[in-house]
Amino acid sequence: MREIFDAELQQIGEGLVEMSRLVESAITRAGAALLDGEHQLAQDVIAADHEIDRLEKDLDERCVHLLAQQAPVATDLRIVISALRISATLERMGDLAQHVAEVARGRYPAPAVPDLARETFVGMNEAATLVARRTTELLATRDIALAVEIEQGDDALDQLHQDTFAATLSPGWTGTAQETVDVTLLGRYYERFGDHGVSVARRITFLVTGDFDAERPAVTEA
Amino acid sequence: MREIFDAELQQIGEGLVEMSRLVESAITRAGAALLDGEHQLAQDVIAADHEIDRLEKDLDERCVHLLAQQAPVATDLRIVISALRISATLERMGDLAQHVAEVARGRYPAPAVPDLARETFVGMNEAATLVARRTTELLATRDIALAVEIEQGDDALDQLHQDTFAATLSPGWTGTAQETVDVTLLGRYYERFGDHGVSVARRITFLVTGDFDAERPAVTEA
Repeated sequence: MREIFDAELQQIGEGLVEMSRLVESAITRAGAALLDGEHQLAQDVIAADHEIDRLEKDLDERCVHLLAQQAPVATDLRIVISALRISATLERMGDLAQHVAEVARGRYPAPAVPDLARETFVGMNEAATLVARRTTELLATRDIALAVEIEQGDDALDQLHQDTFAATLSPGWTGTAQETVDVTLLGRYYERFGDHGVSVARRITFLVTGDFDAERPAVTEA
Repeated sequence: MREIFDAELQQIGEGLVEMSRLVESAITRAGAALLDGEHQLAQDVIAADHEIDRLEKDLDERCVHLLAQQAPVATDLRIVISALRISATLERMGDLAQHVAEVARGRYPAPAVPDLARETFVGMNEAATLVARRTTELLATRDIALAVEIEQGDDALDQLHQDTFAATLSPGWTGTAQETVDVTLLGRYYERFGDHGVSVARRITFLVTGDFDAERPAVTEA
């Protein structure tokens, strides 16, 4: 029984890594679509989101099957429950990448990000890509030192999110209402990437260290 | 064993109803804070969110305990897993109410919603309050006819969300950048209430009817 459980748990872990790789790819491509006007990449991200959704559904079914067949307890049970939650979080990160791509596609061939906010979104894209990459690595390696980098990426995203407000509300802001709306929504989407990355990082840290306080999701920001 | 399981499951169900009542109260009060400038209500919603978070943590622990002690299978297992997911969704709805209250508090004593968008947010508040109330009733009664009303409330919120864009992007929009930002974020928060309500409604419908397709979360909108 133990061998079957371990094998199935390993498959679930591999499924999470696969999902995270797709999310990482979606975030990277959505950023390029947004900042470099790569229209085809925006289309690709939007078209590929259903694959992330499908993986989530598969993973959830595997977790429920494992719970039913093996009735794990203690740490084993918490690992399976955490996998369910992490897959839901990754699915949301995929949705957010899709939303970024939709904004990019909606403004094409004009850039969605006006020059005055471009530097901020270059920084947000870098931080979000880092969070996504480290999340994949953390899921693959369980090296909780990576969690620190994810928290730092989230801090950077929170600061850059504040910068978007400082930009749109400054007297020098010359953006149209459409640009103000886009910058506001894009800032929110990027800021949420960080929260979700931290949520995954804390769950993994909890599983590795047993420190329950580490598992609580990050306080979310408006 | 069965009697213990049923008793614990009933407690979990009651916990979800209690959580949903708090979320309903938070949404109702946040709307009044926003539309009627009720500063104290905004403070109350922000201060009360930790109670929703605490209930989520309690419920999660009870679900994990029940899984460990009783090793449920089939429908029983799915009920417990659904309870875990519903509590996470309700917690997010509480966060969104807190975000609305934060916007209201941040602009006080000025109204956060400019006159040009007021009617739209009156409608959003009504629809969100309806969704929250029906969600509580659905959790309490398992009467899936209520799910239809929740879906209708979500449709109304999606339409009103589009109205916020139509307003801010119309040539007649005279709002400041701050008002454009606020209307954009508030529109997003209210639109998400509907998605989350539908997510709960579909999970309950799934449990009652066994129709797995009904359980999939609503497609989220940017």
